[in-house]
Amino acid sequence: MPCHEIEFGMFPLEEEEEEGRQLDANGEQSTDPTRFPDGALRLRNPHISEMEQDILYHLALGSGSHDLQEMFSDVRFVCMGGTPKRMEQFAYYIMDEIGYKLPAGTTLLDISFQSYRYSMYKVGPVLCFSHGMGIPSVGILLHEVIKLMYHAKCRDPIFFRLGTCGGIGIEGGNLVISESAVDGLLQPYLELPVLGQMQRRPAVLDRQLAHDLKNLRREDDPFTVTVGKTMCTYDFYEGQGRLDGAFCDYTEEDKLAFLRKIHAENVVNMEMESLCFAALCHHAGVRGAVVCVTLLNRLHGDQVSTPKEVLNKWQEYPQMLVARYIKKALGLPVAVPQRSHPQVVKCPRQAQMVRQQSASFE
Amino acid sequence: MPCHEIEFGMFPLEEEEEEGRQLDANGEQSTDPTRFPDGALRLRNPHISEMEQDILYHLALGSGSHDLQEMFSDVRFVCMGGTPKRMEQFAYYIMDEIGYKLPAGTTLLDISFQSYRYSMYKVGPVLCFSHGMGIPSVGILLHEVIKLMYHAKCRDPIFFRLGTCGGIGIEGGNLVISESAVDGLLQPYLELPVLGQMQRRPAVLDRQLAHDLKNLRREDDPFTVTVGKTMCTYDFYEGQGRLDGAFCDYTEEDKLAFLRKIHAENVVNMEMESLCFAALCHHAGVRGAVVCVTLLNRLHGDQVSTPKEVLNKWQEYPQMLVARYIKKALGLPVAVPQRSHPQVVKCPRQAQMVRQQSASFE
Repeated sequence: MPCHEIEFGMFPLEEEEEEGRQLDANGEQSTDPTRFPDGALRLRNPHISEMEQDILYHLALGSGSHDLQEMFSDVRFVCMGGTPKRMEQFAYYIMDEIGYKLPAGTTLLDISFQSYRYSMYKVGPVLCFSHGMGIPSVGILLHEVIKLMYHAKCRDPIFFRLGTCGGIGIEGGNLVISESAVDGLLQPYLELPVLGQMQRRPAVLDRQLAHDLKNLRREDDPFTVTVGKTMCTYDFYEGQGRLDGAFCDYTEEDKLAFLRKIHAENVVNMEMESLCFAALCHHAGVRGAVVCVTLLNRLHGDQVSTPKEVLNKWQEYPQMLVARYIKKALGLPVAVPQRSHPQVVKCPRQAQMVRQQSASFE
Repeated sequence: MPCHEIEFGMFPLEEEEEEGRQLDANGEQSTDPTRFPDGALRLRNPHISEMEQDILYHLALGSGSHDLQEMFSDVRFVCMGGTPKRMEQFAYYIMDEIGYKLPAGTTLLDISFQSYRYSMYKVGPVLCFSHGMGIPSVGILLHEVIKLMYHAKCRDPIFFRLGTCGGIGIEGGNLVISESAVDGLLQPYLELPVLGQMQRRPAVLDRQLAHDLKNLRREDDPFTVTVGKTMCTYDFYEGQGRLDGAFCDYTEEDKLAFLRKIHAENVVNMEMESLCFAALCHHAGVRGAVVCVTLLNRLHGDQVSTPKEVLNKWQEYPQMLVARYIKKALGLPVAVPQRSHPQVVKCPRQAQMVRQQSASFE
């Protein structure tokens, strides 16, 4: 930001840097602005290293109050989704899948419970967060998670968003992996006013990661996997052309014409976080993927009438695909869960008897 | 939205209607688009009345599944704030303040607990919601609460947002009532892409309500009350000119120049929901007020170092002012709480003995 005389206006799209380390004028390797040589994240903010302590407010953690390196340096995968409940469920699911063993007498703790904002569970190399709804909510989380990765010196972490979406031309219960994100005007960048000027960051996602995830679909999966463009909106009702909000001054025909138009531009789904997720991951030099399950085909309606049990089943599909990726990256067999339980129950029948007898003593 | 051939672009600012009912060409009273003659909300969406049932997804309620009029028709005040915990606390506080008596053997229930999105508590005429963080999150809630008011036939409800903010030139622990809201470019409207065109809604708040609230400050209150302009941003870090985000490419001097510039434009605080709250309330013809407590003076820093107990105390200040307004509107004495407790304990000492004796029986 150049000057102290601030003009309210717009400044040009930030240039995409070439990937990786570049050669400078002397032919020497210049520094990657997003990485230290060992793969740990470098922050694109010179102020943080000068601060006495950095408080991650919305996570209820601080660089002075907590030994973040001790707690989190082994993290390799960051998984985020809308609700605390869903992400707690995912934490236990991924624990089974990767065979992560809790010490006897322990259970998972919501590390950020004191913030009352986000929830946060750690299962060995996997960190799970709820991000709430919409760009500002996921944006605050991403700022603080990126700083957490930096303080903890995590190496080359990969970020996943696991979500739900409306399909455009795709029926409910199928997966979409975003190849990139656009806003409601089909612009492929995140716009944010910063010090009175409009900042634009390209909403680019990792193509190789999207491709690798797609290839993890199995023949017998009950869902299809589509890689395509995602429209990310600031509102669920008018912003997504729904007819069922508190306000609506367009017709069903207007809506369908719009949905068909964006479908022709390769938009295959709509949700409310991908633009920010893509833009901030890309700017931080973090590989990121957005995997969403469609709840309905918006070309056929607005309201979701599928039974809750079916919807709950569908919401496991993004988790299944991401779990396969994580297992493969960890060198585990992809096809079978590596279950292990903290109680290490050898014989469920005898364990049941022990519980009953125990309950009758006071 | 006029046509099916959609051009991506911008359409002009929606005209502000004059308040109340207007005279048409024949000198007859024309219809207020936001009110039925009895004061119940009229929806500016012709589609809702044609739907078989309207599902309020994020509240876990539906117009077909629930008797919304039976449940909610007595609601006169809607209070919303960021976290579920804070709003549950407010629900019990307002219960004491207005002397609302729960039937023996009952406690408050989070009506929307099945949505895992927002929390919702009802205390007689007061409905309390958590709205999460940011414009999209509060926007989804407002769409559904406005529809809820319509289905329940609530008359002339008043909406309050009770929040926290950064003060601009105001020290921590003081109240700001928003007279209007602007975005990060100082624009006094909410912009939202709708069907590929930029929609703009004026972010107007009720001046009389703001004035009435300010007048409820008492001489001995530990806080000041300022009525002023609120800047509402889409991000907590760069969007508010903070130096402590994951990214920052401006200096402390740039930041201060920006804060001083907006202060000169009468901006007295910054938060992340008021623009949408103001725009949607105004468009729905609902009287709304935003009452926030400052957590720090942004002219002096970015990170909040005040102890948690003090911050918790400060967060009660917006609740105190709004409670006084509600009590006055209900015809109750403003100065004293009308406490009443579901247990109706006459003698705390004897009640304590009863509890102890009860606990020793199995």
